[in-house]
Amino acid sequence: MPKAVLLISCPDHRGITAAITHFIYQHNGNILHADQHTDDQTNTFFMRVEWDLTGFDIPRDDIKQIFAPIAQNFHMEWSLNFSDQKSRMAIFVSRQLHCLFDLLYRRQAGHFDCDIPLIVSNHQDAEPLAKQFGIRFCHFPVFAENKTEQEHRQLEILTQEKIDTIVLARYHQILSPQFVQSYHNRIINIHHSFLPAFVGQKPYEQAFRKGVKIIGATSHYVTADLDQGPIIEQDTVRISHRDELEDLIRKGEDLEKMVLSRAVRWHLQKKILGYGNKTVIFD
Amino acid sequence: MPKAVLLISCPDHRGITAAITHFIYQHNGNILHADQHTDDQTNTFFMRVEWDLTGFDIPRDDIKQIFAPIAQNFHMEWSLNFSDQKSRMAIFVSRQLHCLFDLLYRRQAGHFDCDIPLIVSNHQDAEPLAKQFGIRFCHFPVFAENKTEQEHRQLEILTQEKIDTIVLARYHQILSPQFVQSYHNRIINIHHSFLPAFVGQKPYEQAFRKGVKIIGATSHYVTADLDQGPIIEQDTVRISHRDELEDLIRKGEDLEKMVLSRAVRWHLQKKILGYGNKTVIFD
Amino acid sequence: MPKAVLLISCPDHRGITAAITHFIYQHNGNILHADQHTDDQTNTFFMRVEWDLTGFDIPRDDIKQIFAPIAQNFHMEWSLNFSDQKSRMAIFVSRQLHCLFDLLYRRQAGHFDCDIPLIVSNHQDAEPLAKQFGIRFCHFPVFAENKTEQEHRQLEILTQEKIDTIVLARYHQILSPQFVQSYHNRIINIHHSFLPAFVGQKPYEQAFRKGVKIIGATSHYVTADLDQGPIIEQDTVRISHRDELEDLIRKGEDLEKMVLSRAVRWHLQKKILGYGNKTVIFD
Amino acid sequence: MPKAVLLISCPDHRGITAAITHFIYQHNGNILHADQHTDDQTNTFFMRVEWDLTGFDIPRDDIKQIFAPIAQNFHMEWSLNFSDQKSRMAIFVSRQLHCLFDLLYRRQAGHFDCDIPLIVSNHQDAEPLAKQFGIRFCHFPVFAENKTEQEHRQLEILTQEKIDTIVLARYHQILSPQFVQSYHNRIINIHHSFLPAFVGQKPYEQAFRKGVKIIGATSHYVTADLDQGPIIEQDTVRISHRDELEDLIRKGEDLEKMVLSRAVRWHLQKKILGYGNKTVIFD
Repeated sequence: MPKAVLLISCPDHRGITAAITHFIYQHNGNILHADQHTDDQTNTFFMRVEWDLTGFDIPRDDIKQIFAPIAQNFHMEWSLNFSDQKSRMAIFVSRQLHCLFDLLYRRQAGHFDCDIPLIVSNHQDAEPLAKQFGIRFCHFPVFAENKTEQEHRQLEILTQEKIDTIVLARYHQILSPQFVQSYHNRIINIHHSFLPAFVGQKPYEQAFRKGVKIIGATSHYVTADLDQGPIIEQDTVRISHRDELEDLIRKGEDLEKMVLSRAVRWHLQKKILGYGNKTVIFD
Repeated sequence: MPKAVLLISCPDHRGITAAITHFIYQHNGNILHADQHTDDQTNTFFMRVEWDLTGFDIPRDDIKQIFAPIAQNFHMEWSLNFSDQKSRMAIFVSRQLHCLFDLLYRRQAGHFDCDIPLIVSNHQDAEPLAKQFGIRFCHFPVFAENKTEQEHRQLEILTQEKIDTIVLARYHQILSPQFVQSYHNRIINIHHSFLPAFVGQKPYEQAFRKGVKIIGATSHYVTADLDQGPIIEQDTVRISHRDELEDLIRKGEDLEKMVLSRAVRWHLQKKILGYGNKTVIFD
Repeated sequence: MPKAVLLISCPDHRGITAAITHFIYQHNGNILHADQHTDDQTNTFFMRVEWDLTGFDIPRDDIKQIFAPIAQNFHMEWSLNFSDQKSRMAIFVSRQLHCLFDLLYRRQAGHFDCDIPLIVSNHQDAEPLAKQFGIRFCHFPVFAENKTEQEHRQLEILTQEKIDTIVLARYHQILSPQFVQSYHNRIINIHHSFLPAFVGQKPYEQAFRKGVKIIGATSHYVTADLDQGPIIEQDTVRISHRDELEDLIRKGEDLEKMVLSRAVRWHLQKKILGYGNKTVIFD
Repeated sequence: MPKAVLLISCPDHRGITAAITHFIYQHNGNILHADQHTDDQTNTFFMRVEWDLTGFDIPRDDIKQIFAPIAQNFHMEWSLNFSDQKSRMAIFVSRQLHCLFDLLYRRQAGHFDCDIPLIVSNHQDAEPLAKQFGIRFCHFPVFAENKTEQEHRQLEILTQEKIDTIVLARYHQILSPQFVQSYHNRIINIHHSFLPAFVGQKPYEQAFRKGVKIIGATSHYVTADLDQGPIIEQDTVRISHRDELEDLIRKGEDLEKMVLSRAVRWHLQKKILGYGNKTVIFD
């Protein structure tokens, strides 16, 4: 059965929940999930509501228009999505392929409801894997001189392939603010540390030198500030003095795969609402 | 500001959420939290809704009566609670005092919004602690012959003290079905294993003999079947071959304290809905 | 550089550690790791010692003979292994392929120092994966009537391929005591529950019905008693009432992969010592 | 039975383990635990060895002298401790008392083998607790002008009370380098964040603003650089957007108590070896 998902944020006000749920009920929709949160500090209201479209008496194309007055009334920022509109995802990767491998496996195992028509890389290591899974592979070597030009060409192909979501699965290039702007809150990165600790390059080396007893991984939306975007998911694992740097890297791989795949899954299920530099996760 | 909390379960049906939120809005209540869940297997609807009573236009004593027709219409099982009605909790304990100590500390630190007027024990070890915190202590030695009689006397004192919630903080006596029935889903136990593993006596000894690599603790509502009631919360901690039995017991203490205190907190905040032999936790 | 690993268990006695380390030093070996443990309850001594063979003045083939008198003196059970002798591993699997996939990935990424020349299955689902990784695939359909015969044929092929370690990566057939005996403490199974909870079939269904708040996975050596062999590794993950059965299965997959791969890695590195129905892990 | 513990670090060299274990065996000592680690990067050898003194044929006061030539030979840094020499610990605290409370409880429950004769504070909040446990309480208000003088007076009392270990259980004053120098690697601090994230003041506020999904706590030895000393232990706990700042603080309390108490226990059991800015934990 097709379902609709409404994601809403607005200044808190008496009657918002009632107005939304009444709108759905009045048009014969059956609410499957409703989750609501209020941030006391900023007095902001957040809601995710998912309903069965079977029997809903507004044609799909008209829902936005008919809901618009309610949204305006409460000054909502909002988005409407349908469960049968499959997301189209591109994966960017450099030379470490474990996250790419894992994403492709999960896509195949049915954990992700999306198409993956495109893999982009500044190296050629991922090409055989792309071939094996029958996915278009685009190689864009990136240097200081050609970066702007390459990003232009990447954006063209992303448009051509109707990509709506980009996953940076250990892609070791910094995207320009212009590029990031084109996919606001739709580029998901995995950083191999427990942010905000160990920003930037070689976080496992940084962690090893520091002598931490736990390492982590962080998935976040990409913004113009390196490794500073809204955090979606994090996880940690215990290490000891017996672990060499290569053990940190190996243990970290499992963290990265799990943290990134959870973030991607929530994003695809429209369970994430960004606000300021934080996220609400309706899990 | 005083708040009302409504906990609801009923067969799923179109329009339930709309009816509840409309009821609150219509009487000028401001919803602070609304959380809803549907169990697909049994087609059951669960909801917890909390609203600010400031400005609510139904007098507190009349809310139940005015909500009743809506509840009947959807065949709801429901309860209504007010945030300023403090729960009155009794703690039952035997000889291990760490959970008792921890509960009293948290009560004092403001983590629990309740009164604790009574400590009951089949031993006298807890008496000094009760004295120190200024709490009435009742010593009921329990043997096979006097068990029924002692439970009768306990129930009298519980009634006298207007106790609504009982916490078994390592109370090593099995309560009779009659006693349990008097406090249905209002007796919280901590069992020092990851249930359903290691039911019954000496779970740490059982775990040690089995050679498990992780131990756990489980908090659950007490039913007539030993260690089989609806699970509220669980947690686990890693052990190794280096840990002797006494290390398991020491590490387990921390688990027990955290697992029990989370369960008690959720119960006091009316965040737990029992159904069948399971629980929904609106955290 | 080639290394030797000695695994020892024996009744505890004054001077064992000194005797072993003196033996290595006296013959010009450099100890890289030495880890020792004494079980107080059974008064048993356990040790793992690893040394650099460069410059060791006993030829590799004579070490056993020259160490034997020391071993006899202390009534040791012991084994000697060399780091450059690659283990040969067979993977048994039924229809769920995530653990197989993960093991093959880790082998390829260099996490496991072994050869995997053989995949055995009672179904044909894994055949394409075997082909893709260039591994011999043997299909043995197993029924009540042909079980003994099939096990005989499997053992022949295992011998032919010089297999020393068997991994049951979700192989849903019970092995006969005779088969198990042929590979004592060399068959590693993954069970998809936190043992001893939920032994036997469909553990996720059992966990879902029970309403646990945490699920687990367990890796153990296989013995004649189903799911009762010495536990090597376990891990757990939190679930909630929002998780349907299919979510438990999906979340459990990650646990299974990590728990099994850690057990396999320790086994290959000769870091596991079984005693009674427990294990010492020299990690 | 009294036991001896030897903690050793030195440049790695063939024969160190053999020399140490032979020394113990030759004098009729029975090794209870021996744990050894080599840091490949710096080529440093670390060892902790614990043996039963019953029957050891060197009088306790002569052990150091007789072992010294071996130590010199291998350029060891080393310390020798006896299990029946009780450590004397002072606790420094400001206004948050949960860690103090927890340490006192664990001392009383027998988790720590030490005396706690002194509590020092720049506030008076802890005085009743000190009284309740029968411990001397010293109130030292600290301001910019009197800091040096107060530290002098504190050191006098510490000397008077023969304190060998200082625990900063949420003591919100920065100690001078001179003070720190007097107790090198003997002052244990708890910082309420996952270091190196959120150094300095109000780490929970920093974490809340950043929108992290996991918070942590770190126990470390105090050095002249604020929050930069060798990390002993860390742990983390998951939070969500539903958690307000006060929930972070409440959840963090449990982390702080557990992380600090583990660090203190290991320190008292002589299981920690500091090297450079890192620690080896022989757990």
